[in-house]
Amino acid sequence: MFTPGIIVAPASATGGAIAVIRVSGEGSIALCDTIFKGRKPLSCAATHTIHYGNIIDGDQIVDDVVVAIFHAPHSYTGEQSVEISIHGSQYIASRVITLLCKQGARLAEPGEFSARAFAAGRIDLSQAEAVADIIAADSQAAHAIASTQMRGGYSDSLHSLREQLIEITALLELELDFGEEDVEFADRTRLSQMLAKCSNVVSTLVESFRTGNAIRNGVSVAIIGAPNVGKSTLLNRLVGEERAMVSDIAGTTRDTVEQSVIIEGIKFRFIDTAGIRTTEDKLELMGIDRTMKAVERAHIIILMTEPSVTFEHIEPTEKQSVIRVVNKADTISTAELTDALYISARENEGIDALRKALRECVDTTALYRGDAIVSNARHHQALSAALEALNAASTALNTGISSELLAEDIRVAINHIGEVTGGTISSDQILHSIFSSFCIGK
Amino acid sequence: MFTPGIIVAPASATGGAIAVIRVSGEGSIALCDTIFKGRKPLSCAATHTIHYGNIIDGDQIVDDVVVAIFHAPHSYTGEQSVEISIHGSQYIASRVITLLCKQGARLAEPGEFSARAFAAGRIDLSQAEAVADIIAADSQAAHAIASTQMRGGYSDSLHSLREQLIEITALLELELDFGEEDVEFADRTRLSQMLAKCSNVVSTLVESFRTGNAIRNGVSVAIIGAPNVGKSTLLNRLVGEERAMVSDIAGTTRDTVEQSVIIEGIKFRFIDTAGIRTTEDKLELMGIDRTMKAVERAHIIILMTEPSVTFEHIEPTEKQSVIRVVNKADTISTAELTDALYISARENEGIDALRKALRECVDTTALYRGDAIVSNARHHQALSAALEALNAASTALNTGISSELLAEDIRVAINHIGEVTGGTISSDQILHSIFSSFCIGK
Repeated sequence: MFTPGIIVAPASATGGAIAVIRVSGEGSIALCDTIFKGRKPLSCAATHTIHYGNIIDGDQIVDDVVVAIFHAPHSYTGEQSVEISIHGSQYIASRVITLLCKQGARLAEPGEFSARAFAAGRIDLSQAEAVADIIAADSQAAHAIASTQMRGGYSDSLHSLREQLIEITALLELELDFGEEDVEFADRTRLSQMLAKCSNVVSTLVESFRTGNAIRNGVSVAIIGAPNVGKSTLLNRLVGEERAMVSDIAGTTRDTVEQSVIIEGIKFRFIDTAGIRTTEDKLELMGIDRTMKAVERAHIIILMTEPSVTFEHIEPTEKQSVIRVVNKADTISTAELTDALYISARENEGIDALRKALRECVDTTALYRGDAIVSNARHHQALSAALEALNAASTALNTGISSELLAEDIRVAINHIGEVTGGTISSDQILHSIFSSFCIGK
Repeated sequence: MFTPGIIVAPASATGGAIAVIRVSGEGSIALCDTIFKGRKPLSCAATHTIHYGNIIDGDQIVDDVVVAIFHAPHSYTGEQSVEISIHGSQYIASRVITLLCKQGARLAEPGEFSARAFAAGRIDLSQAEAVADIIAADSQAAHAIASTQMRGGYSDSLHSLREQLIEITALLELELDFGEEDVEFADRTRLSQMLAKCSNVVSTLVESFRTGNAIRNGVSVAIIGAPNVGKSTLLNRLVGEERAMVSDIAGTTRDTVEQSVIIEGIKFRFIDTAGIRTTEDKLELMGIDRTMKAVERAHIIILMTEPSVTFEHIEPTEKQSVIRVVNKADTISTAELTDALYISARENEGIDALRKALRECVDTTALYRGDAIVSNARHHQALSAALEALNAASTALNTGISSELLAEDIRVAINHIGEVTGGTISSDQILHSIFSSFCIGK
């Protein structure tokens, strides 16, 4: 991952009026000077200044550009860097990059700019990952999570957690040095309290992942019900376009159809499903099977019925929210109403109330209060492992196990916590697999 | 078109690591200060400097950004301008643009930045149009044409042409002032020579449009021949992928199929066509009709036959190049060869020779010598009209027409020449229609 040299990559997409090419590494300014002709050489330029000129290939002018100069360590990577704003054509972008590569730069690997920023200690691993997330964020909430994380997020609290745990192991190791004398430097009651406090912090983070993941990737909503109850019509209402195929024929929707829509800053992924009923049709049975799988994964289930039709084919888990909706409400008298939500998908009635109900299923109080929320699966995995080790340590403590084994459990927790910010990842391969999921130029 | 105010638009496409938002107009730096928090206000910053900070919305941080400051007149528009580099998410881009609009900016119309550069006299109209072309250029030759035009191109030569013509009209008008006395300030022989010279320059430009247009939009190549001669297989060979549907059934290709490929810096648009034969099939006849239309418009015709099959269904015009290709050459003995190009599309034989033959049909000597080449249809139209007026003037001169009518013809030519660089376009509406074909942010 951390191969030296001058790297180059498109930093922006092409297709607009301008596009940006990023060059980074010791000597990148001098390298750019070999293909740049302006009023004065870029090597003479102060940091954070902009220079107009031409990119030249021999005596051919490739483009009129504006070049920004960054001296080390005041750049994204912490290295000497150059950003070249060209006209936004793919042709010019490849030509400029090819020219730079001829002069000694090489094409950056995906995420390599961020990897260098990490290596230079400018950002930790969770911040680097947040940069990738912030680029991908397509809703206010997803952006808020990534934004908090990019500015440190839970890095600080994890850092102080690690320090507390390191302090505990230091005391335990001191005991080991006095092994024969059976002294206890670490007061067991206090130790137990400290462990409980740490577990608590980590546990809150681990639990926040359900919300964090839903916000980052969209809250999945399965719309289920008997055939022909109007599920596809409802999906089309919710997303405001004709996405799902609608007909009066029961069983029109064979496969699951997915469509996203943002409601008050939260992305909901609606999954229209095949109607559930007893059938012999093989294709329809496959559809029902896929429906059941979609239901299992869903955060929210919209259970859709018609007046005088009951439907009890599914058993939601306790973590799933269920919204009961009665469609075709325009066909019944108000006397029949229960506590379900009454809508008419066809007449576009009650849809706003349903949107409101959906939004209320997602508790974003913590998010907008600025609480740390884990949205990254890798972090969730590391923190879950840390929690397990902390719980093991607590149990060990209560059963009066040896300081040695206790210290070992805590050390495992420390390592897993460190994986989040990258401090305890020593394998180049793991870092490579993390950064390579980034886009080129980041 | 030239509405005052601070304008804002995305300057780069989103989807990369970073995206750029451009703000321009008197007061744009102070406006950006209202949503920017850095080490010091942007209003204190020198021109051509870069500043790191946050875009803020109340107490929320929207993004970490890098802001570039341009003072008037040293910017693309000639106005005070700001370029904000954000993380490349669509969500952040719209949020920043919305914030700026709340503070008093408005969304720029397509081409409005270039329109302002034109209004400020920083570029002429043909240069502004070249900026749009350079962004769209997808081949070396198209880029070379746009690049020459952006750096002035034929603006200078048209400018000097106009001055010569203005000088002539001045002399002719002087004669009119002395109307009764029948003097000739303008020597008719010299005048005739001058007009011929001007006609010559304009005529060369007008003629260059055939090449220029082909290079800009791609050289169209129609592949025609009898059914099942292997036209689709050849197209797939030329573009290197399975684009056209291939089968052994005569008449497989119903509609024309088009695919572009760059050969040595020139874009060729290959049009696979329905095989031409006598048929009663209505759909097939429609296909053949479309083939004939494609043939009429094509710059190059690849006339494809098989050994021992003749094909004489079309009559190319004198401006069209025809390459005769005999396919399935692997099935014949060398004794049968004539002067056509022998290939085997299926065996990938002779395809490189065909590429070379195609490339040789396009004469780019003038282009790479740096000669002015007209590639813009609007310029071609204006110059054709100018040429017509100049020819009318020449004829008028030879038939000894009055100075008054002669001057009028020349004045018409002057106006048409001026349209190219925009100097004589006074209608806002025309300018609007030109700039509005540009992309947003340009």
